[in-house]
Amino acid sequence: MIKAGIIGATGYAGAELARLIMQHPDAELTGCASRSYAGQRYADIYKNCNSFTELDCEEENIAAMAKQADVIFTATPQGYLASVINREILADAKIIDLSADFRFKDVSVYEKWYGIEHKCPELFDEAVYGLCEINREEIKKTRLLANPGCYTTCSILSLYPLVKAGLIDHRTIIVDAKSGTSGAGRGAKTANLFCEVNENIKAYGVANHRHTPEIEEQLSYAAGEPVMINFTPHLVPMMRGILVTAYASLADGAGSEAVNAAYEEAYGSETFIRLLKEGEPAETRWVEGSNFVDIGFKIDKRTGRIIVMAALDNLVKGAAGQAVQNMNLMFGLDETAGLMQLPMFP
Amino acid sequence: MIKAGIIGATGYAGAELARLIMQHPDAELTGCASRSYAGQRYADIYKNCNSFTELDCEEENIAAMAKQADVIFTATPQGYLASVINREILADAKIIDLSADFRFKDVSVYEKWYGIEHKCPELFDEAVYGLCEINREEIKKTRLLANPGCYTTCSILSLYPLVKAGLIDHRTIIVDAKSGTSGAGRGAKTANLFCEVNENIKAYGVANHRHTPEIEEQLSYAAGEPVMINFTPHLVPMMRGILVTAYASLADGAGSEAVNAAYEEAYGSETFIRLLKEGEPAETRWVEGSNFVDIGFKIDKRTGRIIVMAALDNLVKGAAGQAVQNMNLMFGLDETAGLMQLPMFP
Amino acid sequence: MIKAGIIGATGYAGAELARLIMQHPDAELTGCASRSYAGQRYADIYKNCNSFTELDCEEENIAAMAKQADVIFTATPQGYLASVINREILADAKIIDLSADFRFKDVSVYEKWYGIEHKCPELFDEAVYGLCEINREEIKKTRLLANPGCYTTCSILSLYPLVKAGLIDHRTIIVDAKSGTSGAGRGAKTANLFCEVNENIKAYGVANHRHTPEIEEQLSYAAGEPVMINFTPHLVPMMRGILVTAYASLADGAGSEAVNAAYEEAYGSETFIRLLKEGEPAETRWVEGSNFVDIGFKIDKRTGRIIVMAALDNLVKGAAGQAVQNMNLMFGLDETAGLMQLPMFP
Amino acid sequence: MIKAGIIGATGYAGAELARLIMQHPDAELTGCASRSYAGQRYADIYKNCNSFTELDCEEENIAAMAKQADVIFTATPQGYLASVINREILADAKIIDLSADFRFKDVSVYEKWYGIEHKCPELFDEAVYGLCEINREEIKKTRLLANPGCYTTCSILSLYPLVKAGLIDHRTIIVDAKSGTSGAGRGAKTANLFCEVNENIKAYGVANHRHTPEIEEQLSYAAGEPVMINFTPHLVPMMRGILVTAYASLADGAGSEAVNAAYEEAYGSETFIRLLKEGEPAETRWVEGSNFVDIGFKIDKRTGRIIVMAALDNLVKGAAGQAVQNMNLMFGLDETAGLMQLPMFP
Repeated sequence: MIKAGIIGATGYAGAELARLIMQHPDAELTGCASRSYAGQRYADIYKNCNSFTELDCEEENIAAMAKQADVIFTATPQGYLASVINREILADAKIIDLSADFRFKDVSVYEKWYGIEHKCPELFDEAVYGLCEINREEIKKTRLLANPGCYTTCSILSLYPLVKAGLIDHRTIIVDAKSGTSGAGRGAKTANLFCEVNENIKAYGVANHRHTPEIEEQLSYAAGEPVMINFTPHLVPMMRGILVTAYASLADGAGSEAVNAAYEEAYGSETFIRLLKEGEPAETRWVEGSNFVDIGFKIDKRTGRIIVMAALDNLVKGAAGQAVQNMNLMFGLDETAGLMQLPMFP
Repeated sequence: MIKAGIIGATGYAGAELARLIMQHPDAELTGCASRSYAGQRYADIYKNCNSFTELDCEEENIAAMAKQADVIFTATPQGYLASVINREILADAKIIDLSADFRFKDVSVYEKWYGIEHKCPELFDEAVYGLCEINREEIKKTRLLANPGCYTTCSILSLYPLVKAGLIDHRTIIVDAKSGTSGAGRGAKTANLFCEVNENIKAYGVANHRHTPEIEEQLSYAAGEPVMINFTPHLVPMMRGILVTAYASLADGAGSEAVNAAYEEAYGSETFIRLLKEGEPAETRWVEGSNFVDIGFKIDKRTGRIIVMAALDNLVKGAAGQAVQNMNLMFGLDETAGLMQLPMFP
Repeated sequence: MIKAGIIGATGYAGAELARLIMQHPDAELTGCASRSYAGQRYADIYKNCNSFTELDCEEENIAAMAKQADVIFTATPQGYLASVINREILADAKIIDLSADFRFKDVSVYEKWYGIEHKCPELFDEAVYGLCEINREEIKKTRLLANPGCYTTCSILSLYPLVKAGLIDHRTIIVDAKSGTSGAGRGAKTANLFCEVNENIKAYGVANHRHTPEIEEQLSYAAGEPVMINFTPHLVPMMRGILVTAYASLADGAGSEAVNAAYEEAYGSETFIRLLKEGEPAETRWVEGSNFVDIGFKIDKRTGRIIVMAALDNLVKGAAGQAVQNMNLMFGLDETAGLMQLPMFP
Repeated sequence: MIKAGIIGATGYAGAELARLIMQHPDAELTGCASRSYAGQRYADIYKNCNSFTELDCEEENIAAMAKQADVIFTATPQGYLASVINREILADAKIIDLSADFRFKDVSVYEKWYGIEHKCPELFDEAVYGLCEINREEIKKTRLLANPGCYTTCSILSLYPLVKAGLIDHRTIIVDAKSGTSGAGRGAKTANLFCEVNENIKAYGVANHRHTPEIEEQLSYAAGEPVMINFTPHLVPMMRGILVTAYASLADGAGSEAVNAAYEEAYGSETFIRLLKEGEPAETRWVEGSNFVDIGFKIDKRTGRIIVMAALDNLVKGAAGQAVQNMNLMFGLDETAGLMQLPMFP
């Protein structure tokens, strides 16, 4: 059994990690740290966990936790991991970070978009970007894993095969994304109260959301040249789920057949990507509670554009599920271990 | 007092019309027809109306209703009005149609997108497209008013000033729209059940939604040449509200100042359009239950695009409210009569 | 025009007061105070109010506000008004208090259930309990009005006629109440986040909710002897609305006819109480956004119990609407002025 | 592997059965019948099941299905099973019925409350009422299992130990229950549309809901004499979950200690019942997607009443999960096989 610790275990992503690990056949939860709830019984906060764990929340101490765990998940605010990580800790335990601290190759991009100084750029070279379907082989070898963001996972997986195959004009990419409210976290903010979120939809972070450069960096690798996009997230009155509606002009000559072939080649043998029939819209309800990503597309011959639609559960494939998938890869387990939950509906 | 009748009074748009007219200072509801509920007391179906009306639902009979009413609102399925209207009826009562039957100038566009034969193209010339802020003077003179669709009102009002002033490249327009579920009507369909809609978001009608040609026709008038766009509606788990997020590349030299000027010129003196501060996202909750449209925009200098965001209540400014605004114009009343409800929040 | 000020104008009850007063034909909002948002433009916080007010939020200063206003509404935490009120202020302006500070006749009941010392018991004799349908004549004469709580308004109005007429055994009364989340206020608490409230229902304050003694006191007046009940509130994933389901054993010989007669006598001429047909359940959706209370009942002959069901909008008849109704009474206006909004559905 | 068939596989309860069986370690789904969708691929209707099954929906034919399956679940309307079942079918396959057809011992109770003639009373003696925690030993031996209703499971489990131990006066029992909307089924009814259910709460079936006699029958066994209660269900704007708030007067001398002891004795070793700390309210969110029932209570010394609060997921422990638990018992499997999902939150 792999011993797993979680730092930031009482946020929504941390709690989803706890839920998945408690049900994982080859891992066990051996420690959970929480700044807000240290000293309290975990199942008194997340009462769904009653009968599943008797752990208490600990103070955050990554070095101490690393002595006892094989892997540590950090579901913590931006900058936390960079401020505490070092090679000694990495020698004790593998790290899977759900923040953005090690997602970029260029520290200046991080510092510009996140507005904080990076305290540990010397580990950038060790870190691997953990988008499993694209970086699988590198992931298996790393001990410092940068787990992708929720919007970015959905956006990159949607567009990567098309950009790589040169089937779209990447200068025309527009990603209009919609997210459930759990993505905003469990912090006590007026903006996230039931009465503020319910019966409302709005865009936010327009033209400056922090997931933009992360999407651009990965698509640039696919394109072989810099890609610059518009990315607009929206807050939807639901708990879980991200839907991406992406638009781009098709390259000359590109059509239905080539697009289908590109997706099939990229994802035909992937367990967690389900390709939809051409024209069938993705819906968040069909992936809720699961690690699946549903991807479909429609071509508009009138305008020469493709509309790609993809859905995932932001807490699972967009956070905790992908983190567990990465753990499975890093420890040589079956990649799907503990992750084959059938989506729950309704 | 203007005597008003409603045909299709028990759908959501019809019921919102009833609600507005019952509270209108210069109009009274004198008849309501409903195919499904004929013979039943209206306030037994819409119990919110208890204490406000004792009317019973009638069978649909537009000719008879026209004898007794000054104006008839038809909140009916596509094709109904075209199949029953004639000049005799128009001589008896003014008609405000909430369906698409008289929204187009070219019958072939209607027949292509709606898939039904138009039974009364000879009245196309009489009909006026009732987007009040744009067609005000023509509206005052007509007796056959085509009330715009919900998505179209929001989309056209968002983009019209920019297209007209040549500030955007109209070939790059993409409209990503999100709607509450009341827009899907009150028909008993599995797809609209609570458990199917809640905790879900999906696109529908991708690349072929019927509101597309309506938006294109009006924007073409603004451009002075044919405009072709991508329009993608989404279903959101909320009851009321439409949010439009529209993207376009700015024309050379166009910037913040020119865009603000264009909106100010177009809407600066409009009661029902509230221009937001630059960069401020529109939110559906701030217009709920009201006839207002909130419009804002953000310019992304990195990509050279403008993102326009607009919100309205699909049942009010997107349907019944605009219909009453049109009635006010057609009868020489104060344009805002009965329509100054302050949006309800939460 | 009556000049009205609000202290606590940025909570949900305060904001609903602002909304109602801005639309009131005989009153105008002349000041709004908010501890959290002093100095900010009111319509920048409640953007629904754009085009309706240019007021800025002030610091709380009831004495200064009283110099300029005819009436002050205090939508403030328990204890605030008692700590600042005095006879000089009351000489300057009438006070309508939405907190519990002056709802009781016995200071020890207040101090026991609310756990705070009452700073101004000497004004208890001046204060009138503002349940309009029951205390109308006293309300007209007072200058210190204790506006009832949301649950209590619904509970008392449901049961008062039956207790007064001796049709039920008051020792058997059980009130099971359900409330939308706006009743929990706009404070930034984790428990009220969208993801915590949505898809959940729970009881709270079981056997010790503060509205219990308020209900008991009023029902005791009706009974002519002490009444003690069980009151259990529940939190429902919706924004507005309270539903009361109340149970009691019928007195010997009491039946449908007597119950109907009691309600008819008590409420037959009341504008804001709509009596439902026997057996018809009340629903919160039919009163949303309005000052109405819908009351119905069913008799279970098998068990000899009556089940009374009543619905109101907690922010309107349960708070701001009733406060305006009280203002209307206190200033000799038409009792329904500014309060005849037809409930909004959907 | 146990071969399982489902009749009525496209309703919500049927679909939840399919989801559970597809993930069950010792059972496989070998047939699914659906009147509405016969001939269609199951995963085209319930798209969450993509990658999990390639089954098509069949016509309903229980005799044919029984030849090929070890167990058949009937998630069908009242009266269906009684009209088709016979001893030949029971010789071929065990039956687990999610309707009410075999839940009663007295056919006249069924016929009175359900208003239909029972076509197969001769099998009443074979049938076992499948409330696992109470009838476990009988369940193991039967081949015709009457799976309890959702409200009834929650109500009976809440009160059974108290009634049996004589700790409450059963003549005072009032059960006020609240349910998510999936309990109303997937039929296309206007009353269950999103816009009708959302932002609303209402009681229904007051004093005549069909689950009443089922609760009364089981509690009568516990009491050793006829029990008659008030049962009031409410519809809550959420998808899953039932909350029961039950009231009763404590018997003389009964108190906290005795109540705790009674629950501990009844459920202390039950996997699927989680006893809450005294005074802690049950919440539906903590059991969502799982087979758990959370039960707690509070004693009100002022009134001498106990308030019992219990929560379960109506589609799992209230329907499909309990059905699988019964299957496990009937086939000698580990009772918890396939049922240890940790509740999903948020």
